[in-house]
Amino acid sequence: MSEKETVRLVVVGSTAIDNIETPWAKRKNLLGGSASYACAASSFFTSVGMVGVVGEDFPPEYMELYRRFGINLEGLQIKPGRTFRWAGAYEENMDERRTLLTELNVFATFRPELPPAYQVAPFLFLGNISPELQAHVLDQVRRPRFIIVDTMDLWITTAVEALRAVIGRVDLLTLNESEARHLSGKHSLIKASRRLLELGPKYVLIKKGEHGSVLFSRNGMFLMPAFPLEDVLDPTGAGDAFAGGFVGALAVGGRVNEAAIRKAMLYGSVVASFGVEAFSLERLSSLTREDIEGRAALFRNMCQVR
Amino acid sequence: MSEKETVRLVVVGSTAIDNIETPWAKRKNLLGGSASYACAASSFFTSVGMVGVVGEDFPPEYMELYRRFGINLEGLQIKPGRTFRWAGAYEENMDERRTLLTELNVFATFRPELPPAYQVAPFLFLGNISPELQAHVLDQVRRPRFIIVDTMDLWITTAVEALRAVIGRVDLLTLNESEARHLSGKHSLIKASRRLLELGPKYVLIKKGEHGSVLFSRNGMFLMPAFPLEDVLDPTGAGDAFAGGFVGALAVGGRVNEAAIRKAMLYGSVVASFGVEAFSLERLSSLTREDIEGRAALFRNMCQVR
Repeated sequence: MSEKETVRLVVVGSTAIDNIETPWAKRKNLLGGSASYACAASSFFTSVGMVGVVGEDFPPEYMELYRRFGINLEGLQIKPGRTFRWAGAYEENMDERRTLLTELNVFATFRPELPPAYQVAPFLFLGNISPELQAHVLDQVRRPRFIIVDTMDLWITTAVEALRAVIGRVDLLTLNESEARHLSGKHSLIKASRRLLELGPKYVLIKKGEHGSVLFSRNGMFLMPAFPLEDVLDPTGAGDAFAGGFVGALAVGGRVNEAAIRKAMLYGSVVASFGVEAFSLERLSSLTREDIEGRAALFRNMCQVR
Repeated sequence: MSEKETVRLVVVGSTAIDNIETPWAKRKNLLGGSASYACAASSFFTSVGMVGVVGEDFPPEYMELYRRFGINLEGLQIKPGRTFRWAGAYEENMDERRTLLTELNVFATFRPELPPAYQVAPFLFLGNISPELQAHVLDQVRRPRFIIVDTMDLWITTAVEALRAVIGRVDLLTLNESEARHLSGKHSLIKASRRLLELGPKYVLIKKGEHGSVLFSRNGMFLMPAFPLEDVLDPTGAGDAFAGGFVGALAVGGRVNEAAIRKAMLYGSVVASFGVEAFSLERLSSLTREDIEGRAALFRNMCQVR
């Protein structure tokens, strides 16, 4: 990949090897991690560069898979040691997930560095890493037009002040329902989002899994259901695929306004819905832009009060 | 009320006196029951007649309240004995409800009879009573254009064959998520609704509480979020107010097609959202059509992918 290639979107996050158990299947050594899901999802819409770290054990076929998605890998570090490993098990009905193993390995000492071509990219998705590292990335971007940050309970518990500072430097905060309640101290999502908007972002996007997502801004709300699926094979990475598809679709368009954001949420939902139809990136790797447009049209009709 | 008055919609269901506890308040002797909520909600849109039963202890001020909503009471029986009494308590966050008391009283021997003016009404909402009584009502209607039936777990457990037969005679079945799963034996709502459509109705409308509602037909799905509220004071009757507002809005229009049904679902959600802002019919009794149209416009915008 040439260093001259234009990267419109930079995604920072984890790359992992996952073992996943569902009520119907057990799969080992799957490609996972927030950056993997988000980059793959965004690659259908825009040119994306990945900032992450893998160990020397990282399977060459997964590197090849990244390339097939067209992901720029200049920002992907290869370090001595083992790749981040995660294992989880879903309960019946896929409602609950237990973490069976978290082995940080090379991810424990990850320090994200942006290659020059990434530093001038207009769109940035800061996936779920420590707020300190997220701030380190923010210090490197030179011409940001739209920055999205994700987080998780761990950082709300252990690094809330650093997290608040990061949120104050971005355009959109995305997190799930329970995290929004945890970070704001409010149960009502309307009250929670009001508190979170006070931290500085223009938008708060709350992910509610099978119940869709809600966008909050100072102007109001946008309610987006999830695309309904008959069977979900593996929900791992759905939130990251949603966020990746969302920011990817946003990066295509010219202006970032609420109309563009709503449309991008529709695309994010659609890509995420394909993602959970199979394990890992298996469904996304055979997906086409036509598949996405077909389901987006269907979905739009399903949401339309006429 | 004159017998010559035209009734476009007939609502059959319970009328009750409720005691309700929430984490913040305890209220006694409130007007409740599925017919009360559904009739009040539909009264903003169309002329509605109530079929139900109350005891001699039924407070005159509640009869007066029905009249202020413009509800035709020719079909409301007054029987010797006490009115149906129900008591319930909501847990913190209003997520769970415990039933504290169910005292059927005159409702135990209720046999719904339709006055002649009701028998020719084009719209019928069969609220949650036994399938045997629902069938008895169906035997009395002479020019039905659109019939909606609601049910509950009790009948799925104790009278499933009679219930299936009733469902086969109506246009739309409405029930909540867990009831849809119980009746169909399927966890996926898509699979559940497919089974339920096989029983004969043209539409299945699944209520998901704070997560909105989904309409299933042979042509596809329509996804409607719930109108988001900062505070819910009392969720009792929300499903009935939704159904009542829905069928009331449907009864105004000329043709019943999917576009009309989608629009009616929006109105049902809006009326239900007002209803839960206070106990019993307290918010609905001060509500105006202008309030409804204002929130409907706001809500439509919240759901619109532009």
